[in-house]
Parts: sequence; C-alpha cells; structure tokens
Amino acid sequence: RGEGMWEVGEQRRAGLAVAVAAALALLACWWRRQRRPVREVLLFPSPPSCTAALLAEAAGLGAEVRPCLCPLPRRDCSLSRLLRHVLSARRSLDLCLFAFSSPQLGRAVQLLHQRGVRVRVVTDAQYMELRGSQIGLLRHTGIQVRHDQESGYMHHKFAIVDRRMLITGSLNWTTQAIQSNRENVLVMEDTEYVKPFLDEFEKIWEEYNPAKYTFF
Amino acid sequence: RGEGMWEVGEQRRAGLAVAVAAALALLACWWRRQRRPVREVLLFPSPPSCTAALLAEAAGLGAEVRPCLCPLPRRDCSLSRLLRHVLSARRSLDLCLFAFSSPQLGRAVQLLHQRGVRVRVVTDAQYMELRGSQIGLLRHTGIQVRHDQESGYMHHKFAIVDRRMLITGSLNWTTQAIQSNRENVLVMEDTEYVKPFLDEFEKIWEEYNPAKYTFF
Repeated sequence: RGEGMWEVGEQRRAGLAVAVAAALALLACWWRRQRRPVREVLLFPSPPSCTAALLAEAAGLGAEVRPCLCPLPRRDCSLSRLLRHVLSARRSLDLCLFAFSSPQLGRAVQLLHQRGVRVRVVTDAQYMELRGSQIGLLRHTGIQVRHDQESGYMHHKFAIVDRRMLITGSLNWTTQAIQSNRENVLVMEDTEYVKPFLDEFEKIWEEYNPAKYTFF
Repeated sequence: RGEGMWEVGEQRRAGLAVAVAAALALLACWWRRQRRPVREVLLFPSPPSCTAALLAEAAGLGAEVRPCLCPLPRRDCSLSRLLRHVLSARRSLDLCLFAFSSPQLGRAVQLLHQRGVRVRVVTDAQYMELRGSQIGLLRHTGIQVRHDQESGYMHHKFAIVDRRMLITGSLNWTTQAIQSNRENVLVMEDTEYVKPFLDEFEKIWEEYNPAKYTFF
C-alpha cells in the first residue's frame, strides 16, 4: 500500500510538472504576442553627442574602456537610437545604402561582423569610392559587399536587422546627413513593410552577384 | 379610432426610421473600423508608362480627353500608384521634398490646387532653382512654397495626404529617380508613423516662414 501511495505521489508530481510546463509555454506564447512591435520615427539632424561609451559597451569592453576625453555630452539622441537598433542584431544585418561614410555606424557594423553576425552590404558604385567612404574598410575586415553596375543610382537607404526589423528613410549613413540635414528614419517590425524590403534585398543581392560583373 | 390607428402607424413608422438610422450609423462606424489602413511599399525604377489618361481623369475631363498618341503602355506601376495616392487628397496635401522635377507629379499637385485642396510645399533652397524643377511652376499657380536657409540639406522626401496618409521613402520626385534609380516609397496610415511626420512638417513650415528669411 505504501508503494501505491508513492506511485500516486509521483503521478501527481509528474502531472504538476506537465501543467507548469504547459502554463509556461502558454505564457511565452502570450508574451510573444503581447510584445509590441518596434515602431519608431527618428528625426535628424541629431545633436552632436559622444557615442564612444555606447560602442565600447557593444564591443564588450564594459568598464575597462578608458573614459572618452571629448567634450560632447553622452545623450539619448536620434544617432544613439539608430546605433542601438543596428547593434541589436544577433544573427544578420542586411544593408542597402547609397552612401556610407559615418565612422560610428561603420564601427557598429564592424563590431557585429566580429561578433559573428552575418553582414551583407549593397551599395552604389559611384559613391563607394569617394573619400571617407566606409565601404573599403568594411571589405578589408572581410564583410561581403556588392555594388551596382547601372547608370541609375542604387539610392535605397535601408537596413534589415535579423530579417525582422526594418530601418529605412531619407538618411544616408554619412556624418553630414546625421549632423546637418533634415532627415527621417523609420524603425519598424510590421511584416507588411519588412517583407517587401527583404525580398528587394535578396533580389538586388543576386542581381549584383560579382559573377555577373562586366569589366571593360 | 381610425385616427388612433393612424397615430400608432405613424409612431411605428417613426420608430422604424430611427432604428434604420441607428443601424446605418452603427454600420458606418463598423465599416470605418474595418477598413484596413493603407500599407503599401512601392519599389522603383518604375517601367516607362503613359499617365495621360490617369491625369485627365483626375482633371475631370473624363471621356472628352483626346487619346494620348504616345506609344507607352498604360499600366499599373509604382508611378501610377504613387500618382493615385497623391490625387486621392480631398482637403490638404503637405509636401516636404528635397528635389521635385517630375512633370507628372507636378501636374498632379497643380490639379489638386485647382480643385481647392490646400497644398503646402517645403523644399531645399539649393535644389529648387535647378533646371527642370517644378517649384517655380507651382509658385506661379499660387501654391505656397517655403524653403530652408540652412547649410545642411532639407533632405526629407515625404508627402502627407489629408493629414492621414503618409508617403515617404528614398524617392525624390524626379524623372531620373522614378525611371532609373533603385528606390522605395512607403504609403502608410498608421498613426504612430504619420503623427511624427505631421509634427515635423508643421515645425519646419513655421521655421521656414518667409518673415524669418534673411537677405544679404
């Protein structure tokens, strides 16, 4: 009879464990649904600010980093928010940028590459060779870059983080645009907007395959 | 008694009318809620196409218009969809455009102005005087235009229709961009995205008030 009691107790415990697991699964499912998708509008120009701490933190240097000696404030601004969204990538970052010369954003992309995130860059052939372009630096660190061979411009300015979050707008990733221009950037996770950009990226990525480049 | 019957009949009829009106109001309310917000991504380049019929229809010329003799097909494409969204304005159109030289989009904006839609245009000072710019033509027809006096660019490329629908992306409203470049345009009615752009427009509109212009 003692053995029977033990069996009943074990069954109860097993039943309880299954119930708890089911409840947790339901809770996780509910949480995923409840988490509101990111929907943000960033406006530029962004006030001058120091992003050294933000980038050092992303590099995993934490407290080891020497305090930055620049006199700029470390504030929450459109540039810091843009950097944080880009740095949130865990698996992939797909960039489709007409012009890319911002050292801060270049550093962020390099950090992601070092962290093992799959980075792909599509850019415009006419602009990538200009002085200050980050494209050469990115290539040197081993990041895959493809460009157009068309007469028209590859004028997109978008990034897709983990195939889930779209960052797009009028802003080229240049210091001039960030600090001086009136610009906008949308950060969005709505599938209806993200999906066409994902498809556009894959289409352009294939069309700009270097195997198809022609040389004169 | 006959009179009493008549009164009852009248009361019934009045009751029925009220019930029908209430049902219609509820239906309208439900329909407004059910109508899915516009969420569209337009990609460019847009294939060459004839927009004469579309613009003639918008001008209220209907069947009277002479058939266009150009050999281009009249197809549904990113340009025609963009034009239709712009032409859907009933009360207001707020434009914030770095470069505006497309004759078709210029014609659409003029039509709206003639139709009594309140059109306001904000643009970049360096680009508005370039050859082919539509800004001069719009000013001549009496449309209010304001521009920056800043060293940075007024680099936005967005339009707001009836303070409800936002049209924004990488596309400047130029023929080069429409026909030759890789570009994107988002068409959206989500308040979370529209509101910051509405506020940005009003802010810039006030900042670029001609009363504040300085002349050298």
